[in-house]
Amino acid sequence: MASMGLNVDLNGELCACAKGPRNLITDVPGVRVGHVTLDGDSPLGPLHTGVTAIVPPGDCFASKLPAAAYVSNGFGKSMGLVQVDELGSLETPILMTNTLSCGACFDALVRYSLDRHAEIGVSTGTVNPVVMECNDGPINTIRALAVTPQHGLDAIDAAADAFDEGDVGAGAGMTCFGLKGGIGSSSRVLTLDGRDYTIGVLVLTNFGSRDCLRVDGRPVGRELAAAERAQAERAGDHTDDRANDRDKGSIVAVIATDLPADSRQLRRMAKRVTVGITRCGGYIGNGSGEIVVAFSTAARIPHWAGETHAGETLPMIDAAPRLSDNAMDDCFRAVAAASEEAIVSSLAHAGSVVGRDGRTTWSLRDAAARAGIALNL
Amino acid sequence: MASMGLNVDLNGELCACAKGPRNLITDVPGVRVGHVTLDGDSPLGPLHTGVTAIVPPGDCFASKLPAAAYVSNGFGKSMGLVQVDELGSLETPILMTNTLSCGACFDALVRYSLDRHAEIGVSTGTVNPVVMECNDGPINTIRALAVTPQHGLDAIDAAADAFDEGDVGAGAGMTCFGLKGGIGSSSRVLTLDGRDYTIGVLVLTNFGSRDCLRVDGRPVGRELAAAERAQAERAGDHTDDRANDRDKGSIVAVIATDLPADSRQLRRMAKRVTVGITRCGGYIGNGSGEIVVAFSTAARIPHWAGETHAGETLPMIDAAPRLSDNAMDDCFRAVAAASEEAIVSSLAHAGSVVGRDGRTTWSLRDAAARAGIALNL
Amino acid sequence: MASMGLNVDLNGELCACAKGPRNLITDVPGVRVGHVTLDGDSPLGPLHTGVTAIVPPGDCFASKLPAAAYVSNGFGKSMGLVQVDELGSLETPILMTNTLSCGACFDALVRYSLDRHAEIGVSTGTVNPVVMECNDGPINTIRALAVTPQHGLDAIDAAADAFDEGDVGAGAGMTCFGLKGGIGSSSRVLTLDGRDYTIGVLVLTNFGSRDCLRVDGRPVGRELAAAERAQAERAGDHTDDRANDRDKGSIVAVIATDLPADSRQLRRMAKRVTVGITRCGGYIGNGSGEIVVAFSTAARIPHWAGETHAGETLPMIDAAPRLSDNAMDDCFRAVAAASEEAIVSSLAHAGSVVGRDGRTTWSLRDAAARAGIALNL
Amino acid sequence: MASMGLNVDLNGELCACAKGPRNLITDVPGVRVGHVTLDGDSPLGPLHTGVTAIVPPGDCFASKLPAAAYVSNGFGKSMGLVQVDELGSLETPILMTNTLSCGACFDALVRYSLDRHAEIGVSTGTVNPVVMECNDGPINTIRALAVTPQHGLDAIDAAADAFDEGDVGAGAGMTCFGLKGGIGSSSRVLTLDGRDYTIGVLVLTNFGSRDCLRVDGRPVGRELAAAERAQAERAGDHTDDRANDRDKGSIVAVIATDLPADSRQLRRMAKRVTVGITRCGGYIGNGSGEIVVAFSTAARIPHWAGETHAGETLPMIDAAPRLSDNAMDDCFRAVAAASEEAIVSSLAHAGSVVGRDGRTTWSLRDAAARAGIALNL
Repeated sequence: MASMGLNVDLNGELCACAKGPRNLITDVPGVRVGHVTLDGDSPLGPLHTGVTAIVPPGDCFASKLPAAAYVSNGFGKSMGLVQVDELGSLETPILMTNTLSCGACFDALVRYSLDRHAEIGVSTGTVNPVVMECNDGPINTIRALAVTPQHGLDAIDAAADAFDEGDVGAGAGMTCFGLKGGIGSSSRVLTLDGRDYTIGVLVLTNFGSRDCLRVDGRPVGRELAAAERAQAERAGDHTDDRANDRDKGSIVAVIATDLPADSRQLRRMAKRVTVGITRCGGYIGNGSGEIVVAFSTAARIPHWAGETHAGETLPMIDAAPRLSDNAMDDCFRAVAAASEEAIVSSLAHAGSVVGRDGRTTWSLRDAAARAGIALNL
Repeated sequence: MASMGLNVDLNGELCACAKGPRNLITDVPGVRVGHVTLDGDSPLGPLHTGVTAIVPPGDCFASKLPAAAYVSNGFGKSMGLVQVDELGSLETPILMTNTLSCGACFDALVRYSLDRHAEIGVSTGTVNPVVMECNDGPINTIRALAVTPQHGLDAIDAAADAFDEGDVGAGAGMTCFGLKGGIGSSSRVLTLDGRDYTIGVLVLTNFGSRDCLRVDGRPVGRELAAAERAQAERAGDHTDDRANDRDKGSIVAVIATDLPADSRQLRRMAKRVTVGITRCGGYIGNGSGEIVVAFSTAARIPHWAGETHAGETLPMIDAAPRLSDNAMDDCFRAVAAASEEAIVSSLAHAGSVVGRDGRTTWSLRDAAARAGIALNL
Repeated sequence: MASMGLNVDLNGELCACAKGPRNLITDVPGVRVGHVTLDGDSPLGPLHTGVTAIVPPGDCFASKLPAAAYVSNGFGKSMGLVQVDELGSLETPILMTNTLSCGACFDALVRYSLDRHAEIGVSTGTVNPVVMECNDGPINTIRALAVTPQHGLDAIDAAADAFDEGDVGAGAGMTCFGLKGGIGSSSRVLTLDGRDYTIGVLVLTNFGSRDCLRVDGRPVGRELAAAERAQAERAGDHTDDRANDRDKGSIVAVIATDLPADSRQLRRMAKRVTVGITRCGGYIGNGSGEIVVAFSTAARIPHWAGETHAGETLPMIDAAPRLSDNAMDDCFRAVAAASEEAIVSSLAHAGSVVGRDGRTTWSLRDAAARAGIALNL
Repeated sequence: MASMGLNVDLNGELCACAKGPRNLITDVPGVRVGHVTLDGDSPLGPLHTGVTAIVPPGDCFASKLPAAAYVSNGFGKSMGLVQVDELGSLETPILMTNTLSCGACFDALVRYSLDRHAEIGVSTGTVNPVVMECNDGPINTIRALAVTPQHGLDAIDAAADAFDEGDVGAGAGMTCFGLKGGIGSSSRVLTLDGRDYTIGVLVLTNFGSRDCLRVDGRPVGRELAAAERAQAERAGDHTDDRANDRDKGSIVAVIATDLPADSRQLRRMAKRVTVGITRCGGYIGNGSGEIVVAFSTAARIPHWAGETHAGETLPMIDAAPRLSDNAMDDCFRAVAAASEEAIVSSLAHAGSVVGRDGRTTWSLRDAAARAGIALNL
């Protein structure tokens, strides 16, 4: 479950950029990630679920972050995207959890914001919580509705520069390519006008049919399936084949960057997470909620522009750094490469898990070992 | 607060259609509406808030309704729109409430669906709750977070063919054109190919600057403002002018119809609620969450198509009635006319309310009486 | 046909801003408008058509303008919108013409751009012509395909600060509310942070059912219809009623501003043209192509960012003025008011025209005079 | 250039469906494809361009086809998409050509439609031509504007069940992954409810950086680059490296199917062309116009619904077959697999071409042979 120093190293041809020092989204200065993992029991059955918080630096409400959402496939229940798109800004941390716990995480972000801003709902408007989700029902007893608003607040409190990948936080119960999925992250460093900028990606992986898995182009899914079929035949076994179910899961992702990208550019970048997904073998399945939120920590947007607040009068028009779309190609390659690597990283870091129905969802490494396949991860 | 038989009768020129027998969204067969109103006290201050449920006929999850969402201005936190757009279907009742209570209403719809379908989260996927909201903070102590999931379930239970308009349910604390707003509804009956079909609209009104209010073209807002200014001058009064604040509120709406419209056509119809809004004096303000969900009760969509469920094997391809876009003009006129009338109806039915800060938000009728203006409502 | 100093003065309650000195889109510094009008004969019948060019200042290709498109109803054939939306920029003048002449105007803008930039198609990419249109077929012999690329180039050449409104240029054959429509324009001046900025709107009006026409809320369409019916009854006449046909036409509009709005903000502003349309009695009809392109002359975008061109090396990241969305309300009110006034202005300036089938399409003033109705225009 | 029976056979893991008898888009009954290729000289330089027509069966105007457009990246000038999206229908054949010839092809489709329907522009509205494009400027003298409307009409006339792939028609001058691209096509056959349905894809390939090319996961682009670098070093050569330029080109695609998919479902399918593109090594580059139009030949939409035309009165509501979204996964896999194979097929069928500047753009096979790489195509 911990970051075991696995050397996931992909996409040489897509992107020549260096990786950040941690190869995590937290390479973007000030961005932190925290998990709360629920691995216990409930009256309805065992729990393998949780919350993951992506926390931008500073006071997101008073000084909002340029942001955008991109819906690759909308079979999902993420919250807050409409306002992110309209206003081009993010004003809370982002919480990821299981599908049916979105309400609890919405409440968490409401409380988080009310606690920090007595003006909300009194002298200024409300707040737009951003919550993202995948369905961990195949492993977790999702009907137990075990996540509470406090779990969301705890995940924010736990946020740090270093964080685990794999079956932790919101990733505890996720399945990816019929294997154990979860949280993965990666980063890339671009140089523009002689200065370095970082693009970081964090994914919650719960998508894909096992046969379709590719690792850097290698059809690992087919190899695993062939080995399993051979073993089953030798054993006279006719097991069910859940691992190759249709792609009914989802993948959600967050992009952070310190590039001064505006909302339109961030949406363009968000779309390129799809490149990483499909390079791993995803085909944007019908049942997949594939949703990305991207934000920039540069050129923050003052809530009280045009007003006098805390003794300061803020102008309606200020000056801000502006990024040319001519730089987008480098950004897109970085997003695509970091996304592909983050997905593989989520597989590489997760451990095998016994789900609510007693069946084991194997980790990529365990599945490869069982099949006698060597992976360079 | 009750439906007092006010004869709001607008838009002769836009739409020659008859109105339904109740002139309410419940004229669409099987559609019901219920309210829970919270008019009490909380530790933080007085409450004027609630929940309104729009309940389609039948089992929305097993047999979904063609649906669409339209975001006219996305300064809003409505939930579930992404999936409605992607799949073109609605699978829960719709709950309306105050902004910060969306999480509670999400939970209500999750529980409602889990209670009715043991398959959810076990043998089938999850469910997509649809929640809509406006910010009643200027009147209601919204920071009290007084709405619970049970309130949402109670609103669904209370759903009936007959329902009140005005300051009830989610409308209890809403402000519209600086006057007391809330719930309004209207309907129109179209004849196509010799058969009658109904289009119903329900609005939750919380938008508009008072000066901009027009009733059937008449600049009632300007008249009210002029009368108030004259009275204030006579009294030597220099009151604050909250009634003419910027349009910081919102309006959300639901369209129901028994026409066999598909998702694309329903989205086109949803967009025409804007016509009604702007005819009343709205200008789609920056801070307004103007969001519409439209659904059809015809040509329902089976959840288990292509599968065998409850002993029945459902085909992947069936036959369904199909509406020509050539009929859209009549639909659009009906939506525009019903929307305009529903907004005026919300104003006409609401009573004056003393808000959390002790100030009175006047009803349209009280304001007109105070100003000495005669209204034909 | 000429700008006769008609005092169209609307929307006091929507927008308190002053109007620009010309009350035209050309109040935005550097923006010019030119017409070519074709009022002649063709082998297939009489012509009443043309081209109108909206020409931003400077070299649009080398130094692009922040821009956005908004499609209110997509029953239209406008060209170039996809790229405007993706890149958020405009790189040619905008041509308006009749529907079937879009190809000719596309060619005109290609030639215009190739003539000015030898790099296009050789050392740099291509160019994105923006063409907008309405269908003047009810008056003009549109099947004659009379507009040529040279007409498009001539309209650009004719561009000036002062220009005619009414039945000129692309407006020569347009019908609006069953009356003679065409080109209309208006402007508003906002003050932000102590500095004045201008928003200008130009419309090509070809939409609306006559009965629905409202002028500042007054149901002029109903009044005209009632008067005509009364006259017809007196005369024992039973004429066809083309004037009250369904809304099969369209309206396209251009917004120009010197505010430093970005593409997202310009799209938000473009959407508010709908407010003006619906206040005049439009309901966004099924057959109406309602499309708006908005551009800003501030904070232009260099084509060769990140490259060395003409001896100059341009950075990937520069600094630019940035407008807060808190200013949007004032912008939206200005757009709505200017749009409503521009539509009325197009009606007020047009003269009656005898169309290809010998029938007269009356101007608003002639229709009012015939009906014995006094208008304050 | 001709279809040489190359055995491009990909994507076993993505899609288990059989291919159609021709493995071309024309496997969809009634769909035909025609080319006009211009390989000559112009006053400005040599021509390598043309037009490709995708012609649906029957009278597209009187009996429209359900259709949708999807813009993956909007750096493109395709025409007609706005109306396709609004009305969900296609009413002309589709023409593909070079970027600057879109106007000529728009004119071709106008003339095609006027010739077949005397009602257009007289008793009914206009027509919405759909034109798609890529920029062949690096090989073709695009500034010569050599394509005429007659070429568009000739391509439609040339349409047949059998057609060439590679550097023909609109593909004559296209570059893909630094190699010679052009037209490619593939098809898949799905079985639903016991009946076979076909999905066909046609692509015009002009995208990709050579290093990024993958064929069924194999990093062919890297292999080519490594071989070239080795050869260049041996030869002491320091050639320019145009083949590995940034992805400045585009890819446009058409999907045809006889499944009764509606517009929303066709848009969802259109989006999955991206899966094929990215599996080949595309990353949806900044400068790439990646646009897809999809249409269905089932459940056609009558133009004169609700009217009496040619003696027949058509109802506003009819019955039509309806496809469940539960079938989308199979459709998506088929689209993704056919798209990937169509792209490779465009490379496999194209021959090396000497461009306008005298430089050779190598075909995939020639490049592989020169590099000493064996391909299983």
